[in-house]
Amino acid sequence: MKVRLIAYMQFNPEYLRQHNLPVRNGEWMASALMHSTRTREGLLEILRETCEEEVVDRITKSVQWGHFTVAGMLDFIFEIEGVSRVLSHQLVRHRMAWFLQQTQRSTDPTHLVPILPPTVTEAGMENDYSQHWDKTKSLYHTLVEKGVPIEDARYILPNATQTRLVMKIDGSNLIHFLKLRIDPHAQWEIRELAKQIHSLIKKTCPNLFSEELKEYWW
Amino acid sequence: MKVRLIAYMQFNPEYLRQHNLPVRNGEWMASALMHSTRTREGLLEILRETCEEEVVDRITKSVQWGHFTVAGMLDFIFEIEGVSRVLSHQLVRHRMAWFLQQTQRSTDPTHLVPILPPTVTEAGMENDYSQHWDKTKSLYHTLVEKGVPIEDARYILPNATQTRLVMKIDGSNLIHFLKLRIDPHAQWEIRELAKQIHSLIKKTCPNLFSEELKEYWW
Amino acid sequence: MKVRLIAYMQFNPEYLRQHNLPVRNGEWMASALMHSTRTREGLLEILRETCEEEVVDRITKSVQWGHFTVAGMLDFIFEIEGVSRVLSHQLVRHRMAWFLQQTQRSTDPTHLVPILPPTVTEAGMENDYSQHWDKTKSLYHTLVEKGVPIEDARYILPNATQTRLVMKIDGSNLIHFLKLRIDPHAQWEIRELAKQIHSLIKKTCPNLFSEELKEYWW
Amino acid sequence: MKVRLIAYMQFNPEYLRQHNLPVRNGEWMASALMHSTRTREGLLEILRETCEEEVVDRITKSVQWGHFTVAGMLDFIFEIEGVSRVLSHQLVRHRMAWFLQQTQRSTDPTHLVPILPPTVTEAGMENDYSQHWDKTKSLYHTLVEKGVPIEDARYILPNATQTRLVMKIDGSNLIHFLKLRIDPHAQWEIRELAKQIHSLIKKTCPNLFSEELKEYWW
Repeated sequence: MKVRLIAYMQFNPEYLRQHNLPVRNGEWMASALMHSTRTREGLLEILRETCEEEVVDRITKSVQWGHFTVAGMLDFIFEIEGVSRVLSHQLVRHRMAWFLQQTQRSTDPTHLVPILPPTVTEAGMENDYSQHWDKTKSLYHTLVEKGVPIEDARYILPNATQTRLVMKIDGSNLIHFLKLRIDPHAQWEIRELAKQIHSLIKKTCPNLFSEELKEYWW
Repeated sequence: MKVRLIAYMQFNPEYLRQHNLPVRNGEWMASALMHSTRTREGLLEILRETCEEEVVDRITKSVQWGHFTVAGMLDFIFEIEGVSRVLSHQLVRHRMAWFLQQTQRSTDPTHLVPILPPTVTEAGMENDYSQHWDKTKSLYHTLVEKGVPIEDARYILPNATQTRLVMKIDGSNLIHFLKLRIDPHAQWEIRELAKQIHSLIKKTCPNLFSEELKEYWW
Repeated sequence: MKVRLIAYMQFNPEYLRQHNLPVRNGEWMASALMHSTRTREGLLEILRETCEEEVVDRITKSVQWGHFTVAGMLDFIFEIEGVSRVLSHQLVRHRMAWFLQQTQRSTDPTHLVPILPPTVTEAGMENDYSQHWDKTKSLYHTLVEKGVPIEDARYILPNATQTRLVMKIDGSNLIHFLKLRIDPHAQWEIRELAKQIHSLIKKTCPNLFSEELKEYWW
Repeated sequence: MKVRLIAYMQFNPEYLRQHNLPVRNGEWMASALMHSTRTREGLLEILRETCEEEVVDRITKSVQWGHFTVAGMLDFIFEIEGVSRVLSHQLVRHRMAWFLQQTQRSTDPTHLVPILPPTVTEAGMENDYSQHWDKTKSLYHTLVEKGVPIEDARYILPNATQTRLVMKIDGSNLIHFLKLRIDPHAQWEIRELAKQIHSLIKKTCPNLFSEELKEYWW
């Protein structure tokens, strides 16, 4: 499994230039937007006057008070490779995220080894598992040679087949996703994904996704 | 594939009784709700005075003008059985519907025959297809006997494995779903589902989902 | 303020008739749908065999465990009359509900008295408040006579002006709405609305919206 | 009315640095993400090999074919000042956008002149309009002095009162918003907003929001 944070919400450089503002990160932006709902001051004044401590304080309170819209202003795009269709079927259920998934309707994914659950190895069944994959792969190619369209040949491909997705999710729904999927009841593969996402996102938004605020996750 | 319309939005019987109103169907309700936004008259007066022709006229216009909220007031719950996980993986992507799907984490689905694409039969590969299923099934049970949890044994189950879902969807998103999935570019299995849903829903909402309005679908 | 539950999700009578099932309420339906994801048994068997205690038990657990989709299967339509545009502006922010609101673009709402906050009466300012309304009303009509379209004349109408809405909301988002708006921090008018909705909905879904489960609301 | 594009989805600079990629704009990103669903090639190869013409071609097709998810990957945050609560009440109905609005519960907005519809001026009623505002303002302050909380004093403030919002919206829902609100049937103030947003966004995403593609807007 490989997860990369490829894009996220950032200030319009043109806006910063025009108003002579320093580059600020997403937490700074979200905390300023939040604060602007409660003051006469416009966003520009807030951005000029806010100090680091205020940002940390406002971000922390927004999570503690469940102000979803603050985290909701920040969007993130993740690239997710080397996962099974067990995972992707669960993942695309998250209705408030947007997905682009490699389609099996027009792409042959059999050059990649299928995902292997650790319990199969522990049960000493790894060889049977991979021999079965070889047979599946071979039947897939025979079907295609006999004229079956690959969108139909894929009916024999297992859940374990590798897939690749792009997920766009806002910070508020990401908090909900992490709460649900880092939980020990979550299935092992999606749990691994949630942990990798959490570790990536903490670098970009250390306050919003801090360990200390986990108990407030919604 | 078996599709049933098991529930839908209906007037509160208590409300009808209190106000001495006759039982009216969903289109009557939606057209009255729509009309109430543009008049001084309350909903009760509208429900008492509206005639059949006005209902047909208002429903027709709501589709022609793209007034999503009219159809959006009507929700439907469908039970969908005997479909593959190719279909369910596509289906749960529809973000504005709600799904409850039989889980492979705790349920063994191998007593049901897998979905067979017609092109496999046409290619004379039906026997190979079903022999491969027998081997897959047998390996699945061996894995479980060796102590692999069924949530991991399922990694070898194919896309063709039968599943069962419940889908709740509002009329507006259903119109979008039908437009997308009755289209000739749609994959054959989800197309078949869309057609069955359309034929069921036309009985309950003949004006909203009429053939004549298909060109206005959004 | 007048709130009525005018419609909600109910079993398709045709489905009950075909399968010879007794009429069941929404909680029965939602609990059966939830249970069907975890069993080999189909929905019909579950509906035939479930007893009252099991329904109560499953509904209770669905709230305690935060299984949103169970409550999410049940939709409700409320008619809301005699509220201000302070309330409606806040209300339509709830993004997962659907609204139909009486428009001021084509309807003159000045025959109805404006909403009066209790604190205005307490401050002895009721007369000034209603005299100001009379002047506003009179200017509104002058503007219209002078040829100002009513969609522009309404710019002088106050927040207190009465409006009327229809809200469709599913059970899961209703739980969130009630949590947020029954809270003592909520504004008094929307709080009153939330209380009236809660008291109506408890009659229809006594277990899902029971007082005992309030601590689990999301 | 003042509208500013303050932030939008941009590549993670760290990701570009690590993979030695040049800075690319949002359309480049969205077109690459779209293309990656249909190829064996990973996103990195696509980003390295794509030429300008291919980007234009893919973006154009995504709109023509109604591939919502391509535009849906790009989010934008707008700051909107100097608009009435007629506009904001309509605006926050767009359910797929996120809003942060200056609250009248804790902020006194009476230092700003109310929005004046051109038809009021044309009818020669500008003086009456502004005298009424002075009386309203004066009553508002009397109410506050007499102890009425400002969250209740605002009940007399007119629809014309100035407000300020932040709106986050993805490209797909923005296309829908523009279609609906640039339309001649839209109310004049929100139409003006839509036009300003369109002219801002065309600078950042000239292909996605080009005049030529307007007929395909959904």
